Amino acid sequence: MKKVIESVPNFSEGRRKDVVIEIVKQAEETENVWVFDWSMDHDHNRSVVTIVGDPEYVGEAIFKMAKKAVELIDLRHHTGGHPRMGAVDVIPFVPIKNSTEDECIELSKKVGKRIGEELQVPVYLYEKSAVNKERSNLSEIRKGQFEGFFEKIRSPQWKPDFGPSEVHPTAGVVAVGAREYLIAFNVNLGTQDLNVANKIARAVRYSSGGYRFVKAMGVDLKEKGIVQVSMNMTNYKKTPLFRVFETIKREAERYGVSVVGSEIVGMIPMDALVKTFKYYLGVDDLNDERVIEYRLLDEISGS
Amino acid sequence: MKKVIESVPNFSEGRRKDVVIEIVKQAEETENVWVFDWSMDHDHNRSVVTIVGDPEYVGEAIFKMAKKAVELIDLRHHTGGHPRMGAVDVIPFVPIKNSTEDECIELSKKVGKRIGEELQVPVYLYEKSAVNKERSNLSEIRKGQFEGFFEKIRSPQWKPDFGPSEVHPTAGVVAVGAREYLIAFNVNLGTQDLNVANKIARAVRYSSGGYRFVKAMGVDLKEKGIVQVSMNMTNYKKTPLFRVFETIKREAERYGVSVVGSEIVGMIPMDALVKTFKYYLGVDDLNDERVIEYRLLDEISGS
Repeated sequence: MKKVIESVPNFSEGRRKDVVIEIVKQAEETENVWVFDWSMDHDHNRSVVTIVGDPEYVGEAIFKMAKKAVELIDLRHHTGGHPRMGAVDVIPFVPIKNSTEDECIELSKKVGKRIGEELQVPVYLYEKSAVNKERSNLSEIRKGQFEGFFEKIRSPQWKPDFGPSEVHPTAGVVAVGAREYLIAFNVNLGTQDLNVANKIARAVRYSSGGYRFVKAMGVDLKEKGIVQVSMNMTNYKKTPLFRVFETIKREAERYGVSVVGSEIVGMIPMDALVKTFKYYLGVDDLNDERVIEYRLLDEISGS
Repeated sequence: MKKVIESVPNFSEGRRKDVVIEIVKQAEETENVWVFDWSMDHDHNRSVVTIVGDPEYVGEAIFKMAKKAVELIDLRHHTGGHPRMGAVDVIPFVPIKNSTEDECIELSKKVGKRIGEELQVPVYLYEKSAVNKERSNLSEIRKGQFEGFFEKIRSPQWKPDFGPSEVHPTAGVVAVGAREYLIAFNVNLGTQDLNVANKIARAVRYSSGGYRFVKAMGVDLKEKGIVQVSMNMTNYKKTPLFRVFETIKREAERYGVSVVGSEIVGMIPMDALVKTFKYYLGVDDLNDERVIEYRLLDEISGS
């Protein structure tokens, strides 16, 4: 197993634990695939599973999980805080090691086609796999949600990429696509003034003129008595963490506020560590292959 | 394979390539062991091999390499710039992953005992494996070299830890022990003044009052027209790279000199990247297990 990718499918079930476990089991029972994390959200009535492994087998696991979700989840009876359009709502594929965006796009099409044909669920290719700009944006696709899709799907503009031209009566539709690894990165500020966090969030985020691959908002951490710039880094290769962090430090100075720490939520690819190391220590020629564990992973997985 | 260690044996042969290849082959043919690097130095007449793998198998590979070196290298005819006392001169064991210093000490004793008994080469346990302070220092053990050891070994103070009480006639003696991972870390200064590099080297190195686990010297990089603080970081866990780097930056300021880059020679453990990332981005709770490739290595090697 030389190539490694990640997939983080979202399912519209966050209350019946037995159902989520049954879905997760499909991945656990697939060889060359590992479940790194799964979590349920009761209020959103939604669950998220993180699986990592060989691309071909990840595709296989995803299909089995989708099949199980279509069997066990009935969106006609689904309520929850998070917008959704399908029993399996969205399936991103992310290159991790020795794999490319193009390979993930190809896989998303292969898996999408199979879900469309074998499960009779309409499939929309999104993000890097999308055929046009409108479909690259997940929230554009999801507009109208499950209930609205019975009408929306009749518009020629919203003809599915794969599968039937009718919404699956209980499982809705699904978005499948390739995207970059997303790092959840939060920076804490030594103030209780939420305004400062919001101003800094606006300074760094794309939507208000900041860095291309940053989504950010100010968050009040009342229990800790501080505020936070909470971010999704949607492409750490092109908009690196260190650059955004240094900008936040400088912006905080304007308000006489200190950065008092930061946090990574969930997992991080080793490459993001290498990039940060190189920047701060001024190392030019380091690469992943020079990290012992990375090399070891190559050797073991290659044998 | 859950536990991973490294060993970097040094052999007193840097001119006959066929001999070195024969020695390296012993490790390549051992399962659960990988040769990450090997190099020969003609002037030193010495070669260094880096192997990584499961502790038990690394011990096995080391014994086979030592056996081959004893067969093929005759120190009576050896000349070279580097001090040496044995055909296989020194064998360090380094914990890398899910393994401890104590386990490496235990392994060094097991392998040392076997080399002593089966190859009839006297063995000195050094560094963390040493029974007293004198033997912890490799250069103390090596004093007198191969030629001087026929006399030195008769002193009660230099009775070997394992093996015969007579020097092996052609293969000499060997030092075996556990030590920390050594990172070769060089920082470049934007000046041609070697004095500045020497002053800064003295400021950071242990021997002249600096950090506990730093060896350093100034080096003139004539071709590049700059000078360098060249360091061996002998315990990056206790004396981290970032702290020494920041000290060098501050010291350089005193002389109106800039740090213009730095380099890591050879390989680096992932943990050193994690520590640097945490320091500069102010992340408190990150650990190795949250790095995708590290976790993946766990999963693959555990199966």
